[in-house]
Amino acid sequence: MPTNPSVLPPEDISQHLGFLLRDRGETLSVAESCTGGRIAAALTCHPGASDFFLEGACVYSNAAKVRTCGVSTETLSSHGAVSVDVAMQLAAGIRNRTQSTYGIGVTGIAGPSGGSPDKPVGTVHMALATPAGCTHHPLSLSDLPRNRVITLTTSLALNMLWSHLKDQ
Amino acid sequence: MPTNPSVLPPEDISQHLGFLLRDRGETLSVAESCTGGRIAAALTCHPGASDFFLEGACVYSNAAKVRTCGVSTETLSSHGAVSVDVAMQLAAGIRNRTQSTYGIGVTGIAGPSGGSPDKPVGTVHMALATPAGCTHHPLSLSDLPRNRVITLTTSLALNMLWSHLKDQ
Repeated sequence: MPTNPSVLPPEDISQHLGFLLRDRGETLSVAESCTGGRIAAALTCHPGASDFFLEGACVYSNAAKVRTCGVSTETLSSHGAVSVDVAMQLAAGIRNRTQSTYGIGVTGIAGPSGGSPDKPVGTVHMALATPAGCTHHPLSLSDLPRNRVITLTTSLALNMLWSHLKDQ
Repeated sequence: MPTNPSVLPPEDISQHLGFLLRDRGETLSVAESCTGGRIAAALTCHPGASDFFLEGACVYSNAAKVRTCGVSTETLSSHGAVSVDVAMQLAAGIRNRTQSTYGIGVTGIAGPSGGSPDKPVGTVHMALATPAGCTHHPLSLSDLPRNRVITLTTSLALNMLWSHLKDQ
């Protein structure tokens, strides 16, 4: 998914998403690493979020990813914290843990340090866990400052679920 | 602690707090209900937060408070989610869970609904768990809109730990 200048602010998307989830009687939990709580904050800035939002896990350390979302230590060792597999395990893990309808998992490199040739700053892996299974959504947000990577990833993570719901 | 117009924005306090914790080689985890991830987001908006920040638990539902922070169901039933006891159990619970040096716990009523004569909108209980024990810090942020309750509570929760550290 390319960088899209027309992406709405997180607080706008979260409001639309909240209306949809509330109407459907469904629930959401999120496990976020590089966005550091920003997704949960966007979801809860609107009144009534407790109708659909169960829990946010800001699993910044690897130990937290393992402890709270059941991410495999082998996966962390072999693929690294910023990887497809970890994003999928975060999404599925928080969904299972909280018994929510949907789970969002996000891991990435917000920068400005921490990048490498293989995984430059702006590399982000998002995943969506639903009752039908788990899907992976990569991002490549290069040449953006840290706060922009975080905000844009937050918008796109919320939009990932919103797009899934509106197609149903 | 009264409403203080001179309170710094969360992102400024979190930067000062990050410098202090990094210098001391100490770690922090947070368990937040009414601030909904805003404390974690403020801590992680600066590069290098992983040096001291281990995990943020956005325990929005009561089940999440019990599951992730070990809050007692009896306490929730007898005192309610917005209470001194729950704030203390959130702070101590997330500290124990993550083995961090410090734990911050926050629960409150951000509004605009959810208030009662006994616990009006703006009622907030914060707690700080340290190696020496747990302390309680109540707030009464009446007549403020939801976003202001959330932002001000976030600043004051971070300032609670900063004040503790600077006195040592």
